[in-house]
Amino acid sequence: MPKLAYLGPAGTFTEEALRILAPHAERLPCANISAALDAARRGEADGAVVPLENSLEGAIPTTLDEFAWGEPLLITAELLLPVEFSLLVRPGTEIGRIKRVFTHPAAITQCRNFIARELPDAVVVAAPSTAAAAQEVALPGSPYDAAIAACIAGEHYGLVELAARIGDRSDTVTRFVRVSRPGPPPEPTGSDRTSLVAFLTDDHPGALLEMLTEFSVRGVNLTRIESRPTGDGIGRYFFHFDFEGHVADARVGEAISGLHRVCADVRFLGSYPRADGVSPQVKPGTANGDFAEATDWLSRVRTGQV
Amino acid sequence: MPKLAYLGPAGTFTEEALRILAPHAERLPCANISAALDAARRGEADGAVVPLENSLEGAIPTTLDEFAWGEPLLITAELLLPVEFSLLVRPGTEIGRIKRVFTHPAAITQCRNFIARELPDAVVVAAPSTAAAAQEVALPGSPYDAAIAACIAGEHYGLVELAARIGDRSDTVTRFVRVSRPGPPPEPTGSDRTSLVAFLTDDHPGALLEMLTEFSVRGVNLTRIESRPTGDGIGRYFFHFDFEGHVADARVGEAISGLHRVCADVRFLGSYPRADGVSPQVKPGTANGDFAEATDWLSRVRTGQV
Amino acid sequence: MPKLAYLGPAGTFTEEALRILAPHAERLPCANISAALDAARRGEADGAVVPLENSLEGAIPTTLDEFAWGEPLLITAELLLPVEFSLLVRPGTEIGRIKRVFTHPAAITQCRNFIARELPDAVVVAAPSTAAAAQEVALPGSPYDAAIAACIAGEHYGLVELAARIGDRSDTVTRFVRVSRPGPPPEPTGSDRTSLVAFLTDDHPGALLEMLTEFSVRGVNLTRIESRPTGDGIGRYFFHFDFEGHVADARVGEAISGLHRVCADVRFLGSYPRADGVSPQVKPGTANGDFAEATDWLSRVRTGQV
Amino acid sequence: MPKLAYLGPAGTFTEEALRILAPHAERLPCANISAALDAARRGEADGAVVPLENSLEGAIPTTLDEFAWGEPLLITAELLLPVEFSLLVRPGTEIGRIKRVFTHPAAITQCRNFIARELPDAVVVAAPSTAAAAQEVALPGSPYDAAIAACIAGEHYGLVELAARIGDRSDTVTRFVRVSRPGPPPEPTGSDRTSLVAFLTDDHPGALLEMLTEFSVRGVNLTRIESRPTGDGIGRYFFHFDFEGHVADARVGEAISGLHRVCADVRFLGSYPRADGVSPQVKPGTANGDFAEATDWLSRVRTGQV
Repeated sequence: MPKLAYLGPAGTFTEEALRILAPHAERLPCANISAALDAARRGEADGAVVPLENSLEGAIPTTLDEFAWGEPLLITAELLLPVEFSLLVRPGTEIGRIKRVFTHPAAITQCRNFIARELPDAVVVAAPSTAAAAQEVALPGSPYDAAIAACIAGEHYGLVELAARIGDRSDTVTRFVRVSRPGPPPEPTGSDRTSLVAFLTDDHPGALLEMLTEFSVRGVNLTRIESRPTGDGIGRYFFHFDFEGHVADARVGEAISGLHRVCADVRFLGSYPRADGVSPQVKPGTANGDFAEATDWLSRVRTGQV
Repeated sequence: MPKLAYLGPAGTFTEEALRILAPHAERLPCANISAALDAARRGEADGAVVPLENSLEGAIPTTLDEFAWGEPLLITAELLLPVEFSLLVRPGTEIGRIKRVFTHPAAITQCRNFIARELPDAVVVAAPSTAAAAQEVALPGSPYDAAIAACIAGEHYGLVELAARIGDRSDTVTRFVRVSRPGPPPEPTGSDRTSLVAFLTDDHPGALLEMLTEFSVRGVNLTRIESRPTGDGIGRYFFHFDFEGHVADARVGEAISGLHRVCADVRFLGSYPRADGVSPQVKPGTANGDFAEATDWLSRVRTGQV
Repeated sequence: MPKLAYLGPAGTFTEEALRILAPHAERLPCANISAALDAARRGEADGAVVPLENSLEGAIPTTLDEFAWGEPLLITAELLLPVEFSLLVRPGTEIGRIKRVFTHPAAITQCRNFIARELPDAVVVAAPSTAAAAQEVALPGSPYDAAIAACIAGEHYGLVELAARIGDRSDTVTRFVRVSRPGPPPEPTGSDRTSLVAFLTDDHPGALLEMLTEFSVRGVNLTRIESRPTGDGIGRYFFHFDFEGHVADARVGEAISGLHRVCADVRFLGSYPRADGVSPQVKPGTANGDFAEATDWLSRVRTGQV
Repeated sequence: MPKLAYLGPAGTFTEEALRILAPHAERLPCANISAALDAARRGEADGAVVPLENSLEGAIPTTLDEFAWGEPLLITAELLLPVEFSLLVRPGTEIGRIKRVFTHPAAITQCRNFIARELPDAVVVAAPSTAAAAQEVALPGSPYDAAIAACIAGEHYGLVELAARIGDRSDTVTRFVRVSRPGPPPEPTGSDRTSLVAFLTDDHPGALLEMLTEFSVRGVNLTRIESRPTGDGIGRYFFHFDFEGHVADARVGEAISGLHRVCADVRFLGSYPRADGVSPQVKPGTANGDFAEATDWLSRVRTGQV
C-alpha cells in the first residue's frame, strides 16, 4: 500500500483528489505544497498529490516553481476535480452574525457574488488553504466566524454547512497531479499528456515563437503554456508547457530534443494518461510510422542504397 | 490635485509606488485591488495605482483579471519598485517569542530562507496584503506576534523593525501601474510599452503561434505574455501581452489590428512610457516612415500612378 | 478597335490566345516576346499578348525578365490555352523522308515520345518559335523537312498536317497574359489574381520564409512562385509571385505593403480576373469587412473612444 | 581513367567544365543533356557533367527535370565556370556580311547589346547548344554566317574569332555538376552543399511555407529554390532545393527526414563540396554535438535516468 503526501490538512480538495487517484493509498497530510513534495523527495512518502491549476484562478505558482526549481519529480497521473464551495460555521452560528470569514484567496475570488450578496459587511481574510480555514474556524477561540471550504472539510472538523455550492460558477475545475521520484514514465496509452519546463538561453525577441515552432513543426499540440519570472528582474521568464502525446512518441521526442538544443535548459516533468481521455488528432506525417519510415529512408540515403 | 486610489492600507508597497508616480496626489487607500480599481471606475478617485507583476512571484492574478473582465480602464504609467521586507513587531516583542507571523503569501515565499533560519517554529499565516498584516499586528489583541512588510508600514502603524532586508534575494522588483478611466493614451515618448488582452476565437492548435506571428511579422517585440484561464474549464485560456512601442506607432497599430481580426476580442489596456527608459531597436522596414512610404506606394499602385 | 502586339509570326499559339482574349483586336505580329512588349511600351500597339508559363516547361524566362527589368507594364487579363502539336510538312513530303525537323525547344521536349517512335533518325533543330519553324519550313529552299507547330500555323503557311496531337500529354496548357501600359487595374471581380516581383534587400537565410509569412499572415494564398537569378553571380535571386485576390482587397493591400517594407523593391505587375474563375476561400478575419472593422477599432483605441 | 559523358559536341562550355572537374577523364560527347545523363545511367560512361544553372538565365529546365523524373543519379561535385562568348565565322567572312547568326537562346539573351549594336540587321536563329552552332557554321553549305559560342568551340571547328567577350556582362557564371550512378555520397568536407527534389502531397496554401520551416527550424540555410510544374495543369509544382551542409550532418538529416514525412516524395540528389568553399555559419543548437547531446538527454528522459 503506497503512502502519498498531499496538501493537507485532512478535508482539502487535494485529499479528495488523492482518494480518487489512489483509493487504497495511505495518506500523509502536509502543511503546504512544498512540504508534500519534499515528503515525496525525501522518501517519507512514495509520492505526492498536489494541485497544478484551477479553471478560474489559473496555475498554482508554488507548484509550478517547485517543479521548475526543486529536486526533480515525475508526474505520473492527473485528475480534474469539480470544485464546490460551502459556507461552514461552528454549530450555533447564524449567518447574520458572521463578521469575519476565513478562506483561501482563490475561494474569495470564486465566491465573490455570494459574499457581496449574503455577507456584504463581513471582513474576508486570506487563509493558506480552504481546509486550514475550516480547521481554524473549528477552534474554540477562533477570531473567525465562518470558513469557505469543501463540504468534506466541514464534516472533518465538525462544522455546519450553512450554504452549499456558493461559487459564482458551477463548472469550476481543479487539475491535480500525482508525482513520484524520477524514474521511467508510465507506458503510453494513446491518450497522454507531457509536461516540461524550458529556460531560455537569452530573452531575444522571437524566442517564444521559436519554441512554439519546435512543437508545431512536429505536429505537437500545446494544451497549456505558462510564463513564470526567473526572478532575475522584471522581463525575464521561463515557461511551463503541457502538450499532447507521450515522450515515447517519435514526434514528441524530436520536438523536445529540438527544444533542448535551442534552450538553456529543459526539465522533463512527465508523460501520463490524460484525465479527459481525449486522443490527439495526429497530423499527417507525424505518426510513429512516419518517423520510422523517414529514418529508414535517411539511412538508405546516407549509405547510398536508394 | 488628483486623487488616486490604491491597495491599502497606508504603508503598502503600493502606497510607496503611488508616492513616486504622483508625489502630489491625494491618496485613497482601499481594501483590495478590486476596490481600488472600482474607486477609479466610479469616479470616487481620478485613477488608481495597483501592482501588476512581481519579479519573483509573477503576475498578480486579481489585477490581470480585473483588467480583462472588469469595466475598462487605461494604463497611463508604470513603475518598477525594489521590494524590501522587514520583520515588524509590537514594541517589546523579542524574536524568540514570535509564534505566529502574519504576511502576504508572496512575502512568505520571498522570505522563505529567513523564516526557516530565524523563525523555524513559527506558524506563518497568509494576510491579504503586507500592510494589512502590519495593521493587524499593531492591534492590541492581535493573535499574531509579527508581520513581514515594508519598513514604512512599520513606521505607519507604530511597529518596531526587528530585522531589515530579510528577503532571500536583494533584487526583487514589483511592477506597478497607474490607471485612469478610458481616454486618449499619453503621447508617445520613443520609449513606450503597450498592454492588451486577447481572447481566442477557438482553442485550435497553433492559435498562440498565430497571435505571436501577428506581432513578429510587424517587428513588434513582446516583453511579457501571460495565459489566464477563461473559467470555461481547464484548457481554455486568454492572453495578456505587453510589448514594445506605442499604439500611435504604425507597426503597433497594424499588429494589434491584425490581432483584432483573428481574435474573438481584443481589449486595449494602454500605451505608456517604459519605466526602464529602454528604446526599442526598430527592425528594418517597420519604422513609421517605412509604413508611410508603403502606404503611398500602395495608393499609387491601386490608382495606376506607378 | 485596339491593336495588340503578340509573339508572331502569324500562326503561333500566342496568336490563338490573342484571338480568344480580344476577338476584335487588330493583331501586330512581332519577332519575339521582347519586341511584342516593346511595341506596347512605345505605343505602337495598345497592348500585347505573351506566354507566361507552360504546364510542362514552366515559366517563360524572357517574359519573367521583361516584366521584372523592362519598362513597367500592367497585366490586365490571363488565358489558359490547351496546347496541341502537329507535324507539318511541305506538300508532297512523306514521313519516311523527314531528316531535319525544326521546332521550338519546348515542343521538342513535349513531343519526345512521338519523335523517338516515328522520327528516330531525324535531327531536331531548335527554332525561336513553333510558328517561325512552320514559316521556315514553308520556304522553298529550307534545309528543314518538317516543323512541329500548332495546326493553325500549318494552315497559315500552306503546310500539310502529317500527324495531329503528337504531344506526349493531352493536357498541356499554356498560360498567356494580356498587358497594357501602366494604369489603374481592372475592377475586382471576386475571382482575381495578382502578380508582382520582389527583390530581396539582402540574401540572408530565412528571407524567403519572411516574404511568404507576409502573405500567409494576411491569409493571402500564393498560386505560383518563381525564383530568378539577379545576374549578380550564382546564388542571388529575385522572386515572381502570383496570388489570389485583387490589389483593391484589404488583405492583399496590407500583404504587399508589408512586402514593400521588407524588400529592396517590389514591382506590381497587375490584378486581373482569373482564367479558371475560382473564387478564393477567404480565411476568417481577412475579409474586407474584417479589415474595416479593425481599422475603426484602432482609430477608437488611438483616440480613447472605447 | 574514368569516362565521363557531357553535353557535346566538343567545344561546349560543358566540355571546359569537365576538363576542370576531371582533367584526366576520358570524354564522351553526347547530343544533349538527356543523352549525357542516360550514358551515365546505362553504364556507357562512369558519370556525366551537365550544366545546372546560369547566373543570368537561371535553372536549366532539362537538367532539373531529368534529376527529378529520370532514373536516379547522384551529384558528387559542382563547378562555377565564367562564361565568355565569342563571335565565330568561317575564315574569310567579314562582319558586315553576317546575315544569319546561329547560337543557343541563352547566348542570344546574354549578347543582346552586342547583337543590337554590331549586327542590327542579322537574323538570329536558336541552336541546341553554342557548340552545335559552331559545328553547323563550320559546315561548307551552312545557311548561317556566324555562331556565338565559346572561344574553344571556334578552335575546335576551325572558325575565326571576329570578336571576343561579347556578352553584356563580364560576370556571367554557369554552374555545372558531375553526377554518377547512385551510391554513398562523398565524405563531408565542412563546406558542402546538398540538393534534393520535393513533391507536395497536395497544393494546399502554406505548403511551401511548411517545407521552408522544416529547414529553418533545424538551422539549415537554403541557397536555391526552384519551382517546376508537375505537368498536371497550371498551378501544380514540385520544388528543387539546394542548401548548406551535408546529408551526414545531423541538422541536415533531421530536416530532410522532416521533409520526407510531410511530402508525397523526396528525392535526394547528392551532398558534395561547395565550389565556392564557403563554410556555413552553424546556428547555435544545431551543430552535430548539440544533436548528440539532445539524443542522449532524450534517451535518459525516456528511461527515467535523469
